[in-house]
Amino acid sequence: MPPKTRRAGEFELIARHFAPLADGFAGALGLKDDAAWLGAESGQDWVVTSDALVEGVHFLPDDPPDLVARKALRVNLSDLAAKGATAKVYLLDAALPESLDEIWLAQFASGLAADQAVFAVHLIGGDTTSTPGPLTLAITAMGLVPTGKMLRRSQARIGDDVYVSGTIGDAALGLLVRRGELGSLEVADRDWLAGRYRLPAPRTALGPRLVGLANAAIDVSDGLVADLGHVCETSGVGATIEEVHVPLSPAAANALAREPALLDRVLTGGDDYEILFTAPPAAADALKALASALDLRLTRIGAICEGQGVTVRRRDGETRQLARGGWQHF
Amino acid sequence: MPPKTRRAGEFELIARHFAPLADGFAGALGLKDDAAWLGAESGQDWVVTSDALVEGVHFLPDDPPDLVARKALRVNLSDLAAKGATAKVYLLDAALPESLDEIWLAQFASGLAADQAVFAVHLIGGDTTSTPGPLTLAITAMGLVPTGKMLRRSQARIGDDVYVSGTIGDAALGLLVRRGELGSLEVADRDWLAGRYRLPAPRTALGPRLVGLANAAIDVSDGLVADLGHVCETSGVGATIEEVHVPLSPAAANALAREPALLDRVLTGGDDYEILFTAPPAAADALKALASALDLRLTRIGAICEGQGVTVRRRDGETRQLARGGWQHF
Repeated sequence: MPPKTRRAGEFELIARHFAPLADGFAGALGLKDDAAWLGAESGQDWVVTSDALVEGVHFLPDDPPDLVARKALRVNLSDLAAKGATAKVYLLDAALPESLDEIWLAQFASGLAADQAVFAVHLIGGDTTSTPGPLTLAITAMGLVPTGKMLRRSQARIGDDVYVSGTIGDAALGLLVRRGELGSLEVADRDWLAGRYRLPAPRTALGPRLVGLANAAIDVSDGLVADLGHVCETSGVGATIEEVHVPLSPAAANALAREPALLDRVLTGGDDYEILFTAPPAAADALKALASALDLRLTRIGAICEGQGVTVRRRDGETRQLARGGWQHF
Repeated sequence: MPPKTRRAGEFELIARHFAPLADGFAGALGLKDDAAWLGAESGQDWVVTSDALVEGVHFLPDDPPDLVARKALRVNLSDLAAKGATAKVYLLDAALPESLDEIWLAQFASGLAADQAVFAVHLIGGDTTSTPGPLTLAITAMGLVPTGKMLRRSQARIGDDVYVSGTIGDAALGLLVRRGELGSLEVADRDWLAGRYRLPAPRTALGPRLVGLANAAIDVSDGLVADLGHVCETSGVGATIEEVHVPLSPAAANALAREPALLDRVLTGGDDYEILFTAPPAAADALKALASALDLRLTRIGAICEGQGVTVRRRDGETRQLARGGWQHF
């Protein structure tokens, strides 16, 4: 060892399942070369992000292959959206166990194809290799943003309002449903929450529209409090949020009505893939109009202040401080 | 499961070992955000490539961590060079077994740091996660090439000369040395060959200089014949190469003098990371001057012709045809 072994039929596998995903993007060269090219777009920067997913860590061996594919792609699209970028292309690195058969790969590719149509992105490259270990995926996604305007974590300013899109905590509760908990909830609520966990809906329409309105932005992947904590830490500020203002779905509200203690999980659970952002109070009217135009809730949940860490003001008026590194994700 | 678990101390690990590798590239934001940005460079395209490496497949668990890092980076830099691009940045996705300790990671990062200095590239992002399986790395590298000038596999034209940089077969023989074979060779030759296998030297100075001279190009990673076969297939042409013209290092020549049967391995073995390219005969003088300027052998080994596949003309005048898919890599 180590001969550099390649999965038998690697070229055929790529040609059959992945090359069709490159159709329509000239720079991808049909995945027949070692690289792709991206033309410079006048007045725009490329934004690049990457996420790795491991079987048994981020998804289960028996998860449907198309869902694994779509989730892997969507978590990257969520990152781009939160940076104000419009996603264009992605690369896929896949370490494939020998046990994966062509049917699995075909379903995986069909999941990518479905989401490429939804989000107008193209596969432009990557690598496949065999692995003696679990299926491991890395997706690197790229999008465009007006030059110098990428939204960052680090630009929150004292006096900014803190907003979040959509509803918070659904994915964390959906994970409980998937584990067989929350049995007292209606089936429809359980299914809806589980769906929010299964397949995120990245806010790709919202993100690019926040450029020029938001000062700082991040997607809610580690959890509302943790991700706001990242914004505070990199911006050198603190934040106070009002528990009562955190937007809940009807299903999450029903769950909390039965088990008020779940609120902690809502505030700290991950995988919502909403966009958390800060904006000056002067942007409030424009944000209201944007929410209306997109038919998407944008809720002010608090404000940026001097200091550090995230303070949560509870329903009863009590507060608790979440210092740097505070609540861990799960 | 699956809660999305993250290696304990992921943020600290990135801050300690990887963030310093982002110094000096503003768009990387010190790896403190979810994405990086790349400014549009007037008159240039971005070229993107990605390679995945798996412990036990592409490297061994006891390989020195700094060498694993450098090889992972260099195989990507080789791809960019063969496309005529000047490497600028890369992203690293790493699935880390729990058994990897801080010392391993520090050595791994030091290997990246060393090569960043050699090749003038910066880490701008990626992801780290834990894995129950083998260490799995994916590097996505990006470089710049004049607009529309990316060198491709598919542009070989009938009548082109076929060239290769440096010497061929050293890595394949080096792998044999590493396995304890070639014992009759001098120690110095064995060490030199093993070194060519251990750590490739991507032809980063050559690649960008081939823009405007070469028609098609590829790096020799699957093996000379296989990679020329890729060029032929995507270009819709054939090629004939002269065995006697394939450039050998003194060490490889010594090995072949002892075991002539090793020639097959030289022609088909992988991992040389030289650049194989085709160029019109009119470029011959410019290529001679370039070889001299770079102090690097550029050897004409054959020509592009009508037909398909790679024909090798042997020393004795006999030829053998290597059809599409022909000799497999090992």
